[in-house]
Amino acid sequence: MIVAVVGVGLIGGSVGLAARSRLDATVRGFDPRADEAVARGAIHSAHRDLGDALDGADAVFVAVPVDVLADTVATVLEQAPRSAVVTDVGSTKRTVLGAARDPRFVGGHPLAGSEAAGVEHAREDLFDGATWYLTPTATTQGTLLERLHRLLTGLGARPAIIDADVHDRVMAAVSHLPHVVANVLVSRALDALGGERPPATGPSFRDATRVAGAHPALWGGIYAANRDALADALDGAIAELETVRAQLRDGADLTSWQDQAAIRRRALVEAGLGPGATSELRVAVPNRPGVIADITLTLGRAGINISDMALSPSPDNSQGEIALWVPDGRADEAAALVAGLGFAVIARDDLTRPPISRARMASGGQE
Amino acid sequence: MIVAVVGVGLIGGSVGLAARSRLDATVRGFDPRADEAVARGAIHSAHRDLGDALDGADAVFVAVPVDVLADTVATVLEQAPRSAVVTDVGSTKRTVLGAARDPRFVGGHPLAGSEAAGVEHAREDLFDGATWYLTPTATTQGTLLERLHRLLTGLGARPAIIDADVHDRVMAAVSHLPHVVANVLVSRALDALGGERPPATGPSFRDATRVAGAHPALWGGIYAANRDALADALDGAIAELETVRAQLRDGADLTSWQDQAAIRRRALVEAGLGPGATSELRVAVPNRPGVIADITLTLGRAGINISDMALSPSPDNSQGEIALWVPDGRADEAAALVAGLGFAVIARDDLTRPPISRARMASGGQE
Repeated sequence: MIVAVVGVGLIGGSVGLAARSRLDATVRGFDPRADEAVARGAIHSAHRDLGDALDGADAVFVAVPVDVLADTVATVLEQAPRSAVVTDVGSTKRTVLGAARDPRFVGGHPLAGSEAAGVEHAREDLFDGATWYLTPTATTQGTLLERLHRLLTGLGARPAIIDADVHDRVMAAVSHLPHVVANVLVSRALDALGGERPPATGPSFRDATRVAGAHPALWGGIYAANRDALADALDGAIAELETVRAQLRDGADLTSWQDQAAIRRRALVEAGLGPGATSELRVAVPNRPGVIADITLTLGRAGINISDMALSPSPDNSQGEIALWVPDGRADEAAALVAGLGFAVIARDDLTRPPISRARMASGGQE
Repeated sequence: MIVAVVGVGLIGGSVGLAARSRLDATVRGFDPRADEAVARGAIHSAHRDLGDALDGADAVFVAVPVDVLADTVATVLEQAPRSAVVTDVGSTKRTVLGAARDPRFVGGHPLAGSEAAGVEHAREDLFDGATWYLTPTATTQGTLLERLHRLLTGLGARPAIIDADVHDRVMAAVSHLPHVVANVLVSRALDALGGERPPATGPSFRDATRVAGAHPALWGGIYAANRDALADALDGAIAELETVRAQLRDGADLTSWQDQAAIRRRALVEAGLGPGATSELRVAVPNRPGVIADITLTLGRAGINISDMALSPSPDNSQGEIALWVPDGRADEAAALVAGLGFAVIARDDLTRPPISRARMASGGQE
């Protein structure tokens, strides 16, 4: 398998290291600092010409800063092979909405490694256990989505398929809003202290403000890239804070509100637990764009995680079969959802067993 | 030295353990569960009669829940010896403002151990390195404030003298507001996720929401006890979040705001560093109520930490001398502030040396 990495920094370099060592892939790099990436073993070869880097690639990762992302993705799609899957690693997906009309493109976002930048911090294990969001659309080609999904699993990540708008809304809530709030907490604390020495607090204030002021150039760009969803998240947060303030001034008791927060936190923690035992679900699908995205997005929307998938086209390529591995406890629901989309569920195997061997991919990606 | 502990839970029990083992004090307890505290070694004796527990005490710690705190402090002050210093450990100081008119009373608040309750979690080292706020007033007797300050240092804490109102404002900002915000972040995340599975995020969201929904009964009471200062803190936070939201919707760049947050966080971290080398400052003071509180509050207001102090009355008790240990780099400023209050600075010793031996206190508290 040939992997091209456009932009070989922390993320691109880590993709290269993991693809080489875990998937035995040939990795090509396109970056002003590609020579350094070669020296570090993150890529096999450095290319000055984008076309050379992309020639014959099975998968292309665009891992450039958010301000040049949309343009770079467009250029890559012009020059990439027709059979290549192209993805990006930007932290918001509306940035690359334009590219999403190309059947070869799948927006991506690994939740890993924003704290240190540069290929010098790249690590083979950067994505181990990390959620890697994928945002296919109705035009996405199913075989390419499946190839990328399995490639990411091979890198150690947990791919999760999600609608691009939902992705941006979720990231606003679980990442961008907490960063904004950390900044505000620091500012409020300094204001309250006046000249007083800050107390030797326990870990709670330190934890709540650990990311305050993180990487200003990077985070300025992230806030801007997701400004609509973040402003909406602020609407919700401000409204809730106003309610709490009104209750305090009315002399109301906030114990039951604190109780609700405990219940909500438990729900989040429990929902975030690992997938555990999985069941295989096999589905007959017509071989046309959008089908795989449709199925996987429907399951994603229901909170059903797909830990692995495998697509087998029929000999005449008109028809195919997709195997999906979903959590044991959600298999019935997943089967019903897929059937509801009009696809035939061929078989279900509730026995817990490992996903299909990844030897196929590691041996060269002939899928 | 005899220490009485009224309410022998996590905090009271830890005071007992540390006072016994580090200061060789005799510790008496008054609590429905005092027998268990005796069994755990937190106190020497359990008393059913409050007067018995307080009889002959040099220092009294009132460590009962916030809803009965004001009443308990009032009762203790009625029955405590005239020579005893009485303090509480409540998380807001406006709760005990009524008691603050008694020259024996000094409001207190150790920033330690709110996470687990009960004498079964009491530890001798609970206060090691923790800030322990003290809120003396103009009526507080200086010798008693000094006794308490040194006692707390002996327990392992870092006493910090602060105005009661400032205390409540600071606690709203560094503790109560972060708890409110953690609840709101959890609520916003669940709302954004809808049915989606939460991502395997890095530590930032987990850290920011670790305290969400913590101990509802306890925190309901804490919010209520500091409702005015917390509502004011919410005013500030909401205003700042509204500004950020407006900038996002206007298409403004938030990089410089993120930069400011980085600078603010650094200022907080640097201000919170340990005291390092200290200088001794000796000041002649008239022996009347309020003088010590006046000096120590003035230094506290300027952010100058007093790591230790010692008060030596003149033989006729009309005059005295107080020695204060302050950070090396702030000694000139501290001397100027004290002189500005009209007191004579007798001597300054810039040599770094350990504070006065605590043997005096450990040998029985004859001060």
